[in-house]
Amino acid sequence: MTNIQQESLNKHREWRGKLETTSKVPLRDARDLSLAYTPGVAQPCREIHANKGNAYLYTMKANTIAVVTDGSAVLGLGDIGPEAALPVMEGKAILFKEFGDINAIPLCIGSKDVNDIVNTVKLVSPGFGGINLEDIAAPRCFEIEEHLKNALDIPVFHDDQHGTAIVVLAALINSLKLVTKNKETVRVVVCGSGSAGIAIAKLLLLDGFKNILMVDKKGILAKSETWLNWAQKEMAECTNPSQETGSLASALNNADVFVGVSGPNVLTVEMVRTMAPNAIVLAMANPDPEILPHLAKEAGARIVGTGRSDFPNQVNNVLAFPGIFKGALEARARAITDSMKLAAAYAIAQLVYESELNENYIIPSALDRRVGAHVAAAVIKVAQESRTP
Amino acid sequence: MTNIQQESLNKHREWRGKLETTSKVPLRDARDLSLAYTPGVAQPCREIHANKGNAYLYTMKANTIAVVTDGSAVLGLGDIGPEAALPVMEGKAILFKEFGDINAIPLCIGSKDVNDIVNTVKLVSPGFGGINLEDIAAPRCFEIEEHLKNALDIPVFHDDQHGTAIVVLAALINSLKLVTKNKETVRVVVCGSGSAGIAIAKLLLLDGFKNILMVDKKGILAKSETWLNWAQKEMAECTNPSQETGSLASALNNADVFVGVSGPNVLTVEMVRTMAPNAIVLAMANPDPEILPHLAKEAGARIVGTGRSDFPNQVNNVLAFPGIFKGALEARARAITDSMKLAAAYAIAQLVYESELNENYIIPSALDRRVGAHVAAAVIKVAQESRTP
Repeated sequence: MTNIQQESLNKHREWRGKLETTSKVPLRDARDLSLAYTPGVAQPCREIHANKGNAYLYTMKANTIAVVTDGSAVLGLGDIGPEAALPVMEGKAILFKEFGDINAIPLCIGSKDVNDIVNTVKLVSPGFGGINLEDIAAPRCFEIEEHLKNALDIPVFHDDQHGTAIVVLAALINSLKLVTKNKETVRVVVCGSGSAGIAIAKLLLLDGFKNILMVDKKGILAKSETWLNWAQKEMAECTNPSQETGSLASALNNADVFVGVSGPNVLTVEMVRTMAPNAIVLAMANPDPEILPHLAKEAGARIVGTGRSDFPNQVNNVLAFPGIFKGALEARARAITDSMKLAAAYAIAQLVYESELNENYIIPSALDRRVGAHVAAAVIKVAQESRTP
Repeated sequence: MTNIQQESLNKHREWRGKLETTSKVPLRDARDLSLAYTPGVAQPCREIHANKGNAYLYTMKANTIAVVTDGSAVLGLGDIGPEAALPVMEGKAILFKEFGDINAIPLCIGSKDVNDIVNTVKLVSPGFGGINLEDIAAPRCFEIEEHLKNALDIPVFHDDQHGTAIVVLAALINSLKLVTKNKETVRVVVCGSGSAGIAIAKLLLLDGFKNILMVDKKGILAKSETWLNWAQKEMAECTNPSQETGSLASALNNADVFVGVSGPNVLTVEMVRTMAPNAIVLAMANPDPEILPHLAKEAGARIVGTGRSDFPNQVNNVLAFPGIFKGALEARARAITDSMKLAAAYAIAQLVYESELNENYIIPSALDRRVGAHVAAAVIKVAQESRTP
């Protein structure tokens, strides 16, 4: 156990919960009670009964989302179950509040069955304005997201996929500027082909990247490989243009970009040495990255980012999810679209001005209070444009 | 629409949600983030993965309940659906916080199917320390409660049943003192045989009341009646000692106590006139009581209570549910037992000192800040006693 983990444990014991509910309204006297509760409350109930949409006018639904997990892929810890996922979900919820001013409620589901999870979320959805899926293992998470998107008229967002992808794209937009390479020609290796890796590759393709190799524990994703699951098979079709096969080491040979969403110490110093000049390494495994930043730098990488707040260039989803949901809720969007994701990535990148851009500052700080509102504005703009005929 | 309802509607539009989530922990700098979120948070996750019970040490579970409804029996409004129930559930949640210092999360379920509701609650239960069922129609609510009590190792409490029953018993304990009648001999008419009415009759029986008549729209519950549902049939067995049949009017003839959990204006002035001297009328239909207090008084009732905060003697569940759950959570009780309910009723009654007891003060004010802690202490005492061999 590291010092920070021991201290965090102590703090968690002291806090006994990082999230709490509070009343926004006074309850001082009988009149307050009559207004916030019975008999007054009957009237907003009647108005919503007459038109469900009025829930957005009279209740917390307008600004409240559920943070839903089955605890099957929590941080780098894996399948630790719904109870053990709760400290992470509470953490997520306080970040939603702090950086997006959104109420977020952890829902830790005691089943890994796709139907159970989909049904549970559908059945509790009347009280929520959006659903943030979190730390659900691939490829199950893709099915769950797909079913829920089809079933619900509120935004559904799997943060491990799309939040991560948005922030990686933002980091690459600025990194490529700095090394003066362009997205059409760089060789990008995405290490890890779970939910995050697949979403990153998809968003990069959508933005115009051409040469992406995805790598899993067993090697490069290629159509000829027999070990791929259905989601990986799809990715083998649209990445890996020359259908190379081989290991992570061979994939990295002359690569411009490493994007890691895999596990600790997967990327060796030797591998970084074989990358192209001005290599970009985003080693985002949590809590322990694929390679420690100083080792990657010593091996020749020019830009190194991780998921950690104690190193420079923290590629952290917190830059995306609060603003994405803030924008989607304010625009009353029924879904979070690809265009919104791209707009969010460019909005995040934009907040690092060219005059400030350098190897240790390719992306705004996770604590940068400008980001949530800036991303929200970009999302709202897209939502409004898509509505005009 | 009354003035208070119009004003409440305006307030609800201004509030856009009465409940919000807030962070209990600072998020000022990278170190704060490392402690509350990644990488530090991995350690409490590991500790809970090793032992689920540790969730009570490191998360909000210890002090958080779900307020669960299907919106099928909301206030006096009936089956208005899950979205329209949300203003009431938010109101409930802020009362839990204000009077019990408990986090309460509204979960409005989009199905009235017993299995759907039971499964949903079971599946989200890992993140909660208790379940408060709310405004679910009878007799479905009995099945749901029974299933959940058997399936879960956290307290499950249907407030419309047991909260109401506890507060009614508290009000009757003090009212009978005032009119110097005793529970073994008084004739009690419970009007309404849904969830609240049945729970009231059961708790009064448990406390030693002998002569209870339950009445529904179709008349007195008696074994010979053919219109009873299964729950009412059970009650016809254990109430109505001489198996009378007839209407509410005939039931009230010479009755000492009227307990109304039915609908507006069900109790007429003529009926009150036929009650025994020193009659006690608890007319708790919401938002409009079975009879207005001044009419009941004019017709000869000595003590009149309602569910409303704008009349004296408000028989309001808020006197029970915050303290009940506060006690159950603090004692880490696995269930809320009959003994706890009785103890809670006596604890509430006790806070009206004999020197203060009068026709307009038979029960503490819903805003009395002493009640939550006093009820919690009584519940904890019972929980501890039931553990000693």
